[in-house]
Amino acid sequence: SVYHVKLLNSVDRCVDEALEGIVSSSGCLSLLRGHRVVVRADLDALKGRVALLSGGGSGHEPAHAGYIGSGMLSAAVAGGVFASPPPASVLAAILCLRDAGVSGVLLIVKNYTGDRLNFGLAAEQARNRGVAVEMVVVADDCAFDRPSKAGRRGLCGTVFVHKLAGALAEEGCPLDEIVSKVTEAVKGIGTLGVSLSPCSVPGCLPSFDLPAGEMELGLGIHGEPGIKRSKVTSADEVVKTMVDHMTNPASQSHLSLKSGDSVVLCVNNLGALSCLEISVVTRSAIRYLEGRGVRVARVMSGSFMTSLEMAGVSLSMMRADQEILRLFDAKTTASAWPNLSTVCISGTSYILDPPAKDMQETSHTEGPLSDVMRKALEAVCSSLLQRQEELNSLDRASGDGDCGNTHAQAAKAIQEWLPGHIVPGCPGQLLSTLAGLVQERMGGSSGALYSLFLTAAAALLKDRSDPAAWANAMHAGTDAMRWCLDALCPAVEELRRLTTSPPGGHMAILQAAVEKAELGAESTRDLTARAGRASYIATVHVTLPDPGAVAIAAILRAVFEALGGQK
Amino acid sequence: SVYHVKLLNSVDRCVDEALEGIVSSSGCLSLLRGHRVVVRADLDALKGRVALLSGGGSGHEPAHAGYIGSGMLSAAVAGGVFASPPPASVLAAILCLRDAGVSGVLLIVKNYTGDRLNFGLAAEQARNRGVAVEMVVVADDCAFDRPSKAGRRGLCGTVFVHKLAGALAEEGCPLDEIVSKVTEAVKGIGTLGVSLSPCSVPGCLPSFDLPAGEMELGLGIHGEPGIKRSKVTSADEVVKTMVDHMTNPASQSHLSLKSGDSVVLCVNNLGALSCLEISVVTRSAIRYLEGRGVRVARVMSGSFMTSLEMAGVSLSMMRADQEILRLFDAKTTASAWPNLSTVCISGTSYILDPPAKDMQETSHTEGPLSDVMRKALEAVCSSLLQRQEELNSLDRASGDGDCGNTHAQAAKAIQEWLPGHIVPGCPGQLLSTLAGLVQERMGGSSGALYSLFLTAAAALLKDRSDPAAWANAMHAGTDAMRWCLDALCPAVEELRRLTTSPPGGHMAILQAAVEKAELGAESTRDLTARAGRASYIATVHVTLPDPGAVAIAAILRAVFEALGGQK
Repeated sequence: SVYHVKLLNSVDRCVDEALEGIVSSSGCLSLLRGHRVVVRADLDALKGRVALLSGGGSGHEPAHAGYIGSGMLSAAVAGGVFASPPPASVLAAILCLRDAGVSGVLLIVKNYTGDRLNFGLAAEQARNRGVAVEMVVVADDCAFDRPSKAGRRGLCGTVFVHKLAGALAEEGCPLDEIVSKVTEAVKGIGTLGVSLSPCSVPGCLPSFDLPAGEMELGLGIHGEPGIKRSKVTSADEVVKTMVDHMTNPASQSHLSLKSGDSVVLCVNNLGALSCLEISVVTRSAIRYLEGRGVRVARVMSGSFMTSLEMAGVSLSMMRADQEILRLFDAKTTASAWPNLSTVCISGTSYILDPPAKDMQETSHTEGPLSDVMRKALEAVCSSLLQRQEELNSLDRASGDGDCGNTHAQAAKAIQEWLPGHIVPGCPGQLLSTLAGLVQERMGGSSGALYSLFLTAAAALLKDRSDPAAWANAMHAGTDAMRWCLDALCPAVEELRRLTTSPPGGHMAILQAAVEKAELGAESTRDLTARAGRASYIATVHVTLPDPGAVAIAAILRAVFEALGGQK
Repeated sequence: SVYHVKLLNSVDRCVDEALEGIVSSSGCLSLLRGHRVVVRADLDALKGRVALLSGGGSGHEPAHAGYIGSGMLSAAVAGGVFASPPPASVLAAILCLRDAGVSGVLLIVKNYTGDRLNFGLAAEQARNRGVAVEMVVVADDCAFDRPSKAGRRGLCGTVFVHKLAGALAEEGCPLDEIVSKVTEAVKGIGTLGVSLSPCSVPGCLPSFDLPAGEMELGLGIHGEPGIKRSKVTSADEVVKTMVDHMTNPASQSHLSLKSGDSVVLCVNNLGALSCLEISVVTRSAIRYLEGRGVRVARVMSGSFMTSLEMAGVSLSMMRADQEILRLFDAKTTASAWPNLSTVCISGTSYILDPPAKDMQETSHTEGPLSDVMRKALEAVCSSLLQRQEELNSLDRASGDGDCGNTHAQAAKAIQEWLPGHIVPGCPGQLLSTLAGLVQERMGGSSGALYSLFLTAAAALLKDRSDPAAWANAMHAGTDAMRWCLDALCPAVEELRRLTTSPPGGHMAILQAAVEKAELGAESTRDLTARAGRASYIATVHVTLPDPGAVAIAAILRAVFEALGGQK
């Protein structure tokens, strides 16, 4: 085991600083001076209603301060990392709520010895001061097969309780009624966690050792190990193991769940699992539950009750009738509550057919230009295939050595396409077709670049095909690419002279353009690389011409010669 | 480097399965069949308005599908992990929006070669089909001192752009106006990242090596390394380095920021940093910016644009005037947008004074019982101190061996308290005082347990102090503790006979109670441990009596003898 390096200022002050970060960035929370107690800044809004207080050890952020707001908690008390808060702070929070004129205070406590003791003690002290205080203990852990003296632990399912109780308190429900409704709901809540890593309390070694490739099932949120260790299998299999264990009637701590039941599902990142993995696990959980005939009514997926940087996930389920869903859907301003829709997940279709129309462009007809364009294309393909190794070799100096292969792929794609298709007489249609071919078959950045160039150029060759239109099209093509390729730009500049009547005729201009392109390609010697991810990081010094620029000059020369220009 | 084990089903299908997880758990999103395209399920709502499309490589979740909803994106296109999406999918998304009758489509693209090419190409193709499409490129990276050909990268600041453009589109703003407003806002956005670890694309080795204890500054979101490597220092120092670099006028990519400016701050978890650390960094950033005279108007803190499981954080800032804040504050249903208040962070006081009244109980007066209670207390303290080592030794067998020390601490606290204070004549007041003493000085679970017992018992000894009241008080005490301590329960059962007139007199009952307590303590031999975290995990077999139970029996005997009972 090695110490896990953390981004903190001090081990001793990390909880205080984290709370300060949470409160000072919120705008609607306050900190009680001298205590690790966070309360709603708009305490006046609680007058005459039941206030909700929760809390527990730190290291579970966004629990619990993130759940403070209208429709959820009124205040939260934090202990040290994974340590229960002192009763004096719980009492201070209760008395602060009392001073705001609340009708009573409900403590929502996770089932841990320390939390039960300290919240229970403060509750007694507050009662001795005449405050109406009740306590609901959440014990949603589904890990243990056999009874344990301390009972089931309180885990992420506690967040469901904050939401239900919060919605009830917000609508003015009296304390005893909230207690009885919530106590009933708690019986239908279950949670199980799995992790691919331990976590470590700041300043301490990791809570347990776990070799890479193994996972721990049924762990708590305080870094304590779980009930079973095994190899990491697929997300689908892990979810199946978890749900089966959670709902196994032979287990003392199971959640009773049968086909036809409705549930709210919470997929909770314990800390360091990537959001990508969480989404994959969410998919697995919905599919497996639906496969067992369970109706998944709502899903929340994200970081709700973490365990520092544990690379794990917990699944919580709550059996839900219409009344529970109504409370779950009620509005809250709590910062950590996600934006959820009120649509029932199971039974909602979410696959949409893509637009059928227009994905392919319309059919083509031959025209007077078809023949010469076919010849030009054939010449381009031959040239690129002939120079394949030369381009590869240039590319090996600064890139990954596949410039020739990439262009050969495009050439072969065009060669395969030519025999079975007419070459449309409209050059715009031909360039669009070529754009599709290179995009699909050439691949990579080159394919996209050529395709972008061809698509933008095509737009200007729909109704016209005179030399000026071609020149404008080439210009639009380079413009669309937003960076000026070394071979293309000088050639385009030359070509633009075609918009006026050239003294030496079109072919002279075209020849000059080809030569400019070749010079441009040549001039890329000793330039810094300008494409690909490497260019963000460092400048690569090359002494050979850019193979992409050489390829473009070769294409232009092939076209020029196919039109009868001199070799 | 070793492979990072992930919780997935398949490397090839992980992006598709993640998207399915996101969409199938949402209820208000749809997937385009055959594409990695997520669109709003309520496309009808977009009729006549501008639609917003964003996207890019996967591995950045919740970006971008999490930002789809009214007031933000209309659709998002995902590529493979860290790979640009294919133009055909971007085009399919645009045409799908067109079919919904939108007035135009704005593409919000992060500045990467692949994304610019592929989105740009699809934009051209869509324009060729008559769709009004514009593209805004976000390049908010503040890492590079010197110009780079590819320009600044698009990072987490893109989320600000989604929000502003989304709010404008929602209020019916035309496409060209959105483009000009957003283009202006982009100039005031800057981002810089730091990480304590690399990340790894599924199926690949980590993107770079980083020894424990070192950090990489100025990295992108695709696992590419940054501009500088150094030792991990404190959160405050790291934040100072980041903000100074981001705003250094000598750097080509800096964000111009001066005292008096207002900013929106985004503290973004790149993946695997604990929420605790993110909160500490948030505090550092707010304090440092305020120290430089910058007005922090809004703060968002959480996971907004991740880089798989990178243990890092990025800071994004956006210069904000009233109009930008109005758009930032506008409502959205996007699932990944946090619940934020519209209060200006800087200048809002967030420290509240705790309730002054009632934290200590009221003053006491002596009474006829004071003397005997003082004697009983003295006897209890002597007994506990005398048996300190015996209790420790019993505790060493099953616990951490400090049971005697803990009780001795309480005894000493009471011994120190006795000389300077009157013993209140009201037993309820005395028990409350003792509860405070043991809570403060005894510490740990024992302190809380005793304190809880004493507090609950005190409530029943306020107005009465006859034997029946004492018995009820003891019963309330054990009740409050919710689990029945082995020594206390049998004694309490015996004591409850005091509620009726006992034939042998009170002392006989008391003697029987003490003996029952001693028997109860003795009977804890061979029982399983019942307190502390260990009891959740496993059952510990002990052959000595429970030291806590022995201590309680000793306390009861001391009281009994102080009242004149036989030794």
